[in-house]
Amino acid sequence: MVINRKIGLWILMRESLLSLVLLCAWDVVVVVMFQIFHQEWMEQPTLPISLIGSALVLFMSFRNNTAYNRWWEGRTLWGAVTNNSRSFARQAGTILRGCPDLACAMAAYPYALRSALGRLDDIDDVLRLLPDSMKPGIEGRANIPAAILFQIGLRVEAECRRMDIDGALQGQIDRILSDMSNAQGGLERIRNTPLAIQFSVLPKVVAAVFCIILPLSMVQTLGWITPLGSSLVGLLFVALDKIGSDLQDPFGSTPHGMPMLTISRTIEIDLMQSCGLPAPPPLAPVRGVQG
Amino acid sequence: MVINRKIGLWILMRESLLSLVLLCAWDVVVVVMFQIFHQEWMEQPTLPISLIGSALVLFMSFRNNTAYNRWWEGRTLWGAVTNNSRSFARQAGTILRGCPDLACAMAAYPYALRSALGRLDDIDDVLRLLPDSMKPGIEGRANIPAAILFQIGLRVEAECRRMDIDGALQGQIDRILSDMSNAQGGLERIRNTPLAIQFSVLPKVVAAVFCIILPLSMVQTLGWITPLGSSLVGLLFVALDKIGSDLQDPFGSTPHGMPMLTISRTIEIDLMQSCGLPAPPPLAPVRGVQG
Amino acid sequence: MVINRKIGLWILMRESLLSLVLLCAWDVVVVVMFQIFHQEWMEQPTLPISLIGSALVLFMSFRNNTAYNRWWEGRTLWGAVTNNSRSFARQAGTILRGCPDLACAMAAYPYALRSALGRLDDIDDVLRLLPDSMKPGIEGRANIPAAILFQIGLRVEAECRRMDIDGALQGQIDRILSDMSNAQGGLERIRNTPLAIQFSVLPKVVAAVFCIILPLSMVQTLGWITPLGSSLVGLLFVALDKIGSDLQDPFGSTPHGMPMLTISRTIEIDLMQSCGLPAPPPLAPVRGVQG
Amino acid sequence: MVINRKIGLWILMRESLLSLVLLCAWDVVVVVMFQIFHQEWMEQPTLPISLIGSALVLFMSFRNNTAYNRWWEGRTLWGAVTNNSRSFARQAGTILRGCPDLACAMAAYPYALRSALGRLDDIDDVLRLLPDSMKPGIEGRANIPAAILFQIGLRVEAECRRMDIDGALQGQIDRILSDMSNAQGGLERIRNTPLAIQFSVLPKVVAAVFCIILPLSMVQTLGWITPLGSSLVGLLFVALDKIGSDLQDPFGSTPHGMPMLTISRTIEIDLMQSCGLPAPPPLAPVRGVQG
Amino acid sequence: MVINRKIGLWILMRESLLSLVLLCAWDVVVVVMFQIFHQEWMEQPTLPISLIGSALVLFMSFRNNTAYNRWWEGRTLWGAVTNNSRSFARQAGTILRGCPDLACAMAAYPYALRSALGRLDDIDDVLRLLPDSMKPGIEGRANIPAAILFQIGLRVEAECRRMDIDGALQGQIDRILSDMSNAQGGLERIRNTPLAIQFSVLPKVVAAVFCIILPLSMVQTLGWITPLGSSLVGLLFVALDKIGSDLQDPFGSTPHGMPMLTISRTIEIDLMQSCGLPAPPPLAPVRGVQG
Repeated sequence: MVINRKIGLWILMRESLLSLVLLCAWDVVVVVMFQIFHQEWMEQPTLPISLIGSALVLFMSFRNNTAYNRWWEGRTLWGAVTNNSRSFARQAGTILRGCPDLACAMAAYPYALRSALGRLDDIDDVLRLLPDSMKPGIEGRANIPAAILFQIGLRVEAECRRMDIDGALQGQIDRILSDMSNAQGGLERIRNTPLAIQFSVLPKVVAAVFCIILPLSMVQTLGWITPLGSSLVGLLFVALDKIGSDLQDPFGSTPHGMPMLTISRTIEIDLMQSCGLPAPPPLAPVRGVQG
Repeated sequence: MVINRKIGLWILMRESLLSLVLLCAWDVVVVVMFQIFHQEWMEQPTLPISLIGSALVLFMSFRNNTAYNRWWEGRTLWGAVTNNSRSFARQAGTILRGCPDLACAMAAYPYALRSALGRLDDIDDVLRLLPDSMKPGIEGRANIPAAILFQIGLRVEAECRRMDIDGALQGQIDRILSDMSNAQGGLERIRNTPLAIQFSVLPKVVAAVFCIILPLSMVQTLGWITPLGSSLVGLLFVALDKIGSDLQDPFGSTPHGMPMLTISRTIEIDLMQSCGLPAPPPLAPVRGVQG
Repeated sequence: MVINRKIGLWILMRESLLSLVLLCAWDVVVVVMFQIFHQEWMEQPTLPISLIGSALVLFMSFRNNTAYNRWWEGRTLWGAVTNNSRSFARQAGTILRGCPDLACAMAAYPYALRSALGRLDDIDDVLRLLPDSMKPGIEGRANIPAAILFQIGLRVEAECRRMDIDGALQGQIDRILSDMSNAQGGLERIRNTPLAIQFSVLPKVVAAVFCIILPLSMVQTLGWITPLGSSLVGLLFVALDKIGSDLQDPFGSTPHGMPMLTISRTIEIDLMQSCGLPAPPPLAPVRGVQG
Repeated sequence: MVINRKIGLWILMRESLLSLVLLCAWDVVVVVMFQIFHQEWMEQPTLPISLIGSALVLFMSFRNNTAYNRWWEGRTLWGAVTNNSRSFARQAGTILRGCPDLACAMAAYPYALRSALGRLDDIDDVLRLLPDSMKPGIEGRANIPAAILFQIGLRVEAECRRMDIDGALQGQIDRILSDMSNAQGGLERIRNTPLAIQFSVLPKVVAAVFCIILPLSMVQTLGWITPLGSSLVGLLFVALDKIGSDLQDPFGSTPHGMPMLTISRTIEIDLMQSCGLPAPPPLAPVRGVQG
Repeated sequence: MVINRKIGLWILMRESLLSLVLLCAWDVVVVVMFQIFHQEWMEQPTLPISLIGSALVLFMSFRNNTAYNRWWEGRTLWGAVTNNSRSFARQAGTILRGCPDLACAMAAYPYALRSALGRLDDIDDVLRLLPDSMKPGIEGRANIPAAILFQIGLRVEAECRRMDIDGALQGQIDRILSDMSNAQGGLERIRNTPLAIQFSVLPKVVAAVFCIILPLSMVQTLGWITPLGSSLVGLLFVALDKIGSDLQDPFGSTPHGMPMLTISRTIEIDLMQSCGLPAPPPLAPVRGVQG
């Protein structure tokens, strides 16, 4: 996730360069053909372009709204992971009277979740933090984060029985684990359900059609400065399309992806400090981008 | 659900072919009549078409937003089914100290729900997974998934009494079953309440009227290339209508329906693995479409 | 609620007939006056009509969105009634070990709620299902559904004390009753709070003004075919207004009202079957409309 | 809150009269100056007015949406107060085996909340209903409704200890009190956080600018009938601004305010009847307006 | 937060002055160049400006909606902090039979949260209110508010064990602490996740481009009064951009930031009064702005 605005503007410009060059090239072709060879059929009226514009606005507004909502819902669910891990740490520290193993296992959980969502094989952090006694329980499991939660549940049950904890208090801990499970399921839902195909493919196609027709409808009145006007307008709609594309896959590894590693590290620090264990430093953004 | 974008674009084009041919045919008829026979009355001003366009945009934006929200709410509720089945498995494995029968019954539940929502008679998977002791309890019941939840509730009650589980912990399990019941009820609500008739019928009618008038208002200025412009604009609005149509019935068996079978299989794998039973492989998408 | 699309289109056409006739009549008057007597002052420019159109679009989009949200919220709350009645039946069948009286009382509840929301006096179904012991408790009460919930609460309390049920489990049942109470309160809120007067009255007025001015601004260019164009455009905005009107009172007895009787019957069937009592058949829609 | 549509239309017209007169006066000034003195510089092109119109539409749509959402959120929170008071009455009647004092205290609560939200000093109803034993507890407190909830909590605690109620059941009552506290906090949040200053001030300013420029851009084409067209269009946007203004302060004492007194009375009736005490009649609307 | 409308309008004008001057200067340059030197190429048609306007409207509507939703979500979460602190005070006063230390610690919590969110070092209020026994527990912790909640949890656990409180009641208190933790996590999420870079940077750029082109397209028709029309229209869009900028960082120290200090003081008063301790007076707004 880009957190520095200046760098972000730079990244956006770099990513849009290719579109800009293509737009300009086509605009120049059109204006040259019109001005030199004067093809009559090129004199388009403005009606089609404004109707196409209306349809394009509808497509963009649907797509970008849904893409942003997916992104923000994903961010909110990661927030729920953070919150529940803190509540779990508080419960482990009070109800279960301090239980570093459980805190470590819970600190391993967001790293495992991040690997699963990003389809990465990187489970070094998981192995570093997970207590040895729980490692066999996650081997060969299709869903490693769910397996970690299951192991934590087993350990909580064992601790509660050993310490003869009241059922209602154990129920509160179980509830936090269920809430964590709900957050994880929500994140998996966002990853497994790409934006409906109509929303992810059509806006780009319509924007391209729009950009192709645009100089044809402008060249008549704008003449030689058509490329300036047409490229500018085209670039705006290409940028709108890009916003949606960037946001629709929140767990990708682009600069616009969610800062899952930073969040996982924050959780680790909170959990380690809450049971008095040494904590690593927070992750710093790299060139304005949080990983 | 289409998960491959290239195949999805292909599917969308195939499904829109008929509309495109009809649009083109009408446009050609109009332009020929205008250019050859020159019917004066065809010279329509642009005002009506832009006002109809405004109304059409309103209709489309209402309909597509609500259709998409229904779809996404349905998907979220299936996600809740997934989450609650996992939490139930964790509770069965910890509080009830492992209870494979309950896990199997819960794995049968999404298959039963899928059949009920899609109005299918396919309950093979339900019978394969449901413990024999529960089978009589679902016979002749109008609502099979609800009957399975009821049977699970009976079994949980019996287990809790047998093992003398604390009431508060039993209450936590009961709560997960209530949450599951809420998710099921939400899905049934979406299936039983079609999109309000005004939203599902009128946009198509308005789009058709718009496409019929469109070439009349363009032919005067565009001349022989009218079919190109008019078909393009018409196709955009037909595509907008199609998006809404595709999404408004999320439990249908079209390529745009919800991947209920894939989700059910994922739940089965999670539950089987969590109590150490052999799990089937995940379902692969067939030609870019998840079933 | 209309569930058959063809019949629905027919109903919509029948309900819009009067508006169409009025629109056409006015359009014909305008065109005749213009063409025969040629009133100069009728030559309106297009600016006012497009500005009025913008304001109308804003009004319509506010009103229809809020009307639809009210309708869908109402439907969701009826869904919550269904879900909670099922969860209650499961709890009565497991925690309270089967208690047909409670299931019958809960089956009477939605019928009572429907009568209260629709301001009907029809409590035959309530009296048919409610156990005799609870009937005195609802006599003379201003809010009969709330009184039934209170009676159910009393009975649950008595059963729990008799069977010495754990407080935490009784608390789970109490919670379902509270959720039911929340759903009922939400439905009453929607009924008692009509759509803000500005939203329910002004759109109709603005649409009427728009339709009156519309032919004046078209007659200059469209000439004799004005009634065709003007009526078509006018009808679209009248239809938009009608959508909002139909949806804003979800508990009315129009074909667009909520199918409260069908939902009540579905709940009754579920509850009766879950405790082994004979259940009535589901209600079939009458001429494409669910009651 | 206006609940009679005819009276509502009348109220709206009365409230808009001043704006209408001002609009007309300005329009007449413009047309007279143009027609008599023919100021050349008045011939404005249509571009600025349509661009200002676009910006105005954006301002209005932001403001009115947020204002309506505030209003509806407030209404929903009052609904939550109603629901929780009923659930509390059911719990007092069942778990605490009937406790008229608690019902009376809870009936006093909405009256206290209404006074606090409306910044009124009217606590007659509170003193009428609140049991004498609780009166010292609310004296001198900054937040009287919160103090009443606190007193109710103290009394519930005392009753539970006296009757040796299970902690889980007491927890359910405590939870209803927390939910009530959340609803109260939400209402206070809406009252204490006026709509962002940009939304409450700028739309009125922009609408005024728009209305001033409007006749200048119309007089050229409309001539002597400018005041008719210009006032009509201006009035529409003034009405849009008024909708937002009316809704943005839901706890005011205008006819568009929330019917807090009626809701409080409804709650009182429900609570009194549920513990067999005599209940006052419901409040009737006064000239189509609920207080 | 600005709560006085007149002062607010003044603040907005002051903040917009620079933009207005720049806009006017550029408009004057354009009109002078056109009228004196008559550069032909300046005669722009209106199409590009209205298309750029459409794109700008889309950008603004996305950005301002999301910015406002962030702001309101932040305000709602601060409301949750208030509500939960009150519920906690009620529980401390009833279940734990009065516990001033816990009330003081909870009163310190919002001050700590405010410092953390605003990245301030001001923890005087925290040290003033926090009981001495808890001070060592927050030293050196990265997240001080979370540490305070942890300390409160430890103290609750100790009190409950000392007084032999039922587990279910302790569970209710723990639940309030978890809800508080969720609210805190939500606020941190809003602070740590700036508005997506595309939304925070591009609208300003597009608005600037729009304002530069605007006079070019108006000068032809408006002539010498171009600066008036162009500056007015430009100022509207600059104001729209400013609304979004003001709201997108709700925890900043601008006049448009959230009144976190006032809320913290309100919480302190409520908590102090509820356990009979002397409370400070509420904070008064300073020149129409709440801090």
